[in-house]
This record gives sequence, structure tokens and C-alpha cells, in this order.
Amino acid sequence: MLEYVDDLGDPRLTDYTGLRDVELRKSLEAERGLFLAEGEKVIRRAIAAGHPVRSVLTTERWLRTLDDVPEEATVYVVADEVMSGIAGFQVHRGALASMERLELPSVAEVIEKARRVVVLEDIVDHTNVGALFRSAAALGVDAVVLSPRCADPLYRRAVKVSMGAVFAVPYARLDDWFDGLALLRAAGFQTLALTPAADAVPLREVVLGERAALLLGSEGHGLSSRWLHEADHAVRIKMDPGAMARGVDSLNVVAAAAIACYELVTYGDA
Amino acid sequence: MLEYVDDLGDPRLTDYTGLRDVELRKSLEAERGLFLAEGEKVIRRAIAAGHPVRSVLTTERWLRTLDDVPEEATVYVVADEVMSGIAGFQVHRGALASMERLELPSVAEVIEKARRVVVLEDIVDHTNVGALFRSAAALGVDAVVLSPRCADPLYRRAVKVSMGAVFAVPYARLDDWFDGLALLRAAGFQTLALTPAADAVPLREVVLGERAALLLGSEGHGLSSRWLHEADHAVRIKMDPGAMARGVDSLNVVAAAAIACYELVTYGDA
Repeated sequence: MLEYVDDLGDPRLTDYTGLRDVELRKSLEAERGLFLAEGEKVIRRAIAAGHPVRSVLTTERWLRTLDDVPEEATVYVVADEVMSGIAGFQVHRGALASMERLELPSVAEVIEKARRVVVLEDIVDHTNVGALFRSAAALGVDAVVLSPRCADPLYRRAVKVSMGAVFAVPYARLDDWFDGLALLRAAGFQTLALTPAADAVPLREVVLGERAALLLGSEGHGLSSRWLHEADHAVRIKMDPGAMARGVDSLNVVAAAAIACYELVTYGDA
Repeated sequence: MLEYVDDLGDPRLTDYTGLRDVELRKSLEAERGLFLAEGEKVIRRAIAAGHPVRSVLTTERWLRTLDDVPEEATVYVVADEVMSGIAGFQVHRGALASMERLELPSVAEVIEKARRVVVLEDIVDHTNVGALFRSAAALGVDAVVLSPRCADPLYRRAVKVSMGAVFAVPYARLDDWFDGLALLRAAGFQTLALTPAADAVPLREVVLGERAALLLGSEGHGLSSRWLHEADHAVRIKMDPGAMARGVDSLNVVAAAAIACYELVTYGDA
């Protein structure tokens, strides 16, 4: 159903314009149970993953790319100038969709049949969460488990950076941080805490269990001492012995996670 | 030398405030031969790398952290409220420094004694360039070569994201894109073009030469067909066979580069 809208202030566009401020938008999206998907590829992936479409916002020129949008969804059509008034939206991406969240599965459900899992502890940056999901999906991680304070994978920026990979990897959120790893260990997962500490074992040298969970800590401080202590092994990515002397003492979390997933999943069974 | 400044509009702060617009700032920084370093660690690394300090901008509270700043440099001290008026600056980072660029070495110079080199073709995003330098420094890449259109590693955001790694890895810029690889090949480098193409060789299966250069393409389109064609081998990172079906057909450039450098440098001689 097409509706032409002239004005960014039109109340029908509230899902897209309501609250520009990042903090407010975060709560809006969680409370109403909606999220925004950006670009026709990402929208298509979200639809394929079963998310109902509340509405789509696009311009005349991009209408033809939206043939996957269910007929009952309202498509608001605006002029390019109106579209480019949406904060942070680039017109060449073509469309924004307001979509409904699905109920998240439990941690027990997402790990039930998984062999290689990534657990994110308090990764608070949406760009990083999106990039981590993209790597996890590309490399074949079976499931992602989030700590209670981890950033929302369905926040607009995370969805965008992930290129839709947040719809491709099953994930769940822990209710409890303190004993969060107990669930994984009870399910037979070997827990591997990634750290830059020099006395950790290089990941390539670890004998992986039949089931293994890689624990990744926050951008600033790495894993909590609680989780480091609870894990079966502290593992590291082997770095250049001269790097420290050059003032570089670690990889960023996206680079480290990519290498670790690659070792764990791509070659972990070789 | 300390100077107290009350007002963000003071002409002494022009290096920091002159032009907020990204495009204008880019040209300002290149033309005046200056760049901005952010945070005391990064400033320290830039000084250690030999960059002369034009001035430093900080608050009373952070003065004590700046003991590496040469005495002859002017330190402008402002109130917290003035400091937080600098676009994009977070007060907890403590200080901004305006520093002078050094003349870049030639490509021939930076590759002269290098064995493992990364070549960036038209990576235009400063965040990506910064992150790539951080990985290169941590993993022990000997030198980075930039195509003519690659983003500036000394642009403020690149410096910041690199955590100062742009001062830790020698780099140079090609004058000529079209025949850029000829220089490397003449110096005996095996050239490896990284691509997601299914018929490329998984990087772990490549027999590396004594000298090897990894070619990384731009965020959107990957390597140019010119460079892909000129390279000795097309190499890929082995991905999950099911990823394509889930709509995820590649890694982002930072993740891909981290894995590739890890294979090339960390374990490439094993």
C-alpha cells in the first residue's frame, strides 16, 4: 500500500523521525519492539528472517527494488530532499524499514545444537557489535551469546554495519552476568577467554573441545576478571614480539575476534 | 610554555577549531603540513616518532600527564567547558596536540628491508585506515604502501582509531596507481591479491615467497581489476560454505585484513 508523504514532520513518519537523540532512540526501539533496517539488501534479509514489516520509507526511484516487501505493509514515498532529512540516512541506500522484533530465543535454545559459539561480554559499541556479527556469520559461528549489558544487535547502526548478518546468526542474551558461563559449561562447552596477556596460550596451540565458546571482552577493559577466572583457558592471538616496544599492545576487538573466529571455526577442526 | 585561553574563538586555537567541516579540515591539514593527535598516549607516540609539536591544547587537570611535551612547545590551557566545545573531542582523552608532519619516505625506501608488506588500494574511510594500521603494527607487518587515493593515515580520526599505530609502521604513498605494483615486483615481492572470489586460493595454502605483499582493496568494490590481474596470486580467506546462503558474502576490510596479516606474518614462516 503506497502513501505519498510531503513532510518529514508528518506523524506517520514517527518511527523514522521521532527521536533523533541516540539515547532516546535506543529506548524507543526497545520499548515499542521495533527496529530500523536500512538499504534494500538488509531489509530483504530481515524479511527473510521472519520480521514483520511495520512500514517502509523510500523515494519514487527506489520503489522497484522493494518487491520483497509484503503487500499489506505501508510504503511511505517521499521526495529525495525529505529522505535526506532523516538523520544519518544516505539516499543511495534507497529505503528504510521499520520492522518488528521477534521474541529472542533463550540461551539454552541457541546453544542447543551449536558447536562453536561466541560470547560477547559488555561490548557497548554498536559498530563493533555489527562488525562482530558479520565476521561470525561469514566464518560460520553457530550462535552468539550476549552479556546483559551488551549493545543491541538490532540498533540501527549495528544492523547496518553487520550488512544484515544480525539476521543470519542465532543469538540470545544472558539474564545473569555473574553466573553466565555456568550454562555454557553445563552444556559441555569448553570456554576460551580471549586476552592479550602474554601468559595466555596462543589460540592455534589450544586443543579444541567438541564444543567450544570463545569469550570476548569489552573494547576498553577486555574481559572481566570474573569471566577470565571462570574460563577453562586463557587464550591469546600471537602478536609480533616487537609490537609492545612500538607502543602497540593489542588488536581492536573486531580484528581480534575475526582472527579468533577464523582459528576456532575455519581451521579449528583441521 | 603555558598560555591560558578563555574562549574557543581565540585565534591561537585555530589549529583546533579553524574548520569544522570534514572536507575543509582535510585540506587544511594537508596544506599546512599539520595533523592533530588526540590523547596523551597517542601524543607521546607521535613525539617519540619525531614529529615536532606546534602546540598542545588541554585542561588544568591533565597538565601533569604531558611531561613528554618539549618545553619549547606552547601548551594552551582551557576550562573543561571550552575543551568539550572542540568538535568530537571527549574530555577524558585529556589533550589534543597540533603536530607537524614529516616528509614521507619513498615507497622504495620503506620496502627496502621489508619482508611482509601490506598495500592498500583506495581505502577511503579513515576509521578503516586507522584500524588497519593498528592490526599491521600488532601483528608485525614491516611496511604499508598506500595507493594515491587512499585516505590519509594522519587524519585525526585515523590517528585516533589506530591508537598511534600510524607512528609505529613505516608507510609511503605510490605516485602512480596504474603501474604501482611494478615497483614491488621489481623488488622481488610476491604479490597476493585478497578477494572473496571462490576460485582464489585459501591464504593458508599459499606457499609464501621470501618477500610477500598483501594487496587490500577498497571497502565497496574490493581490488581493481588492474591490480587483481597484475598480482601473482588471487588469495582468499576461507569462509563458511553456508555463509553465502545466509546472505553474507564477505568480511569487512578490517576483519579480512586482520586475518590475512595474521596468516602472512604471524604464521607465514612456520
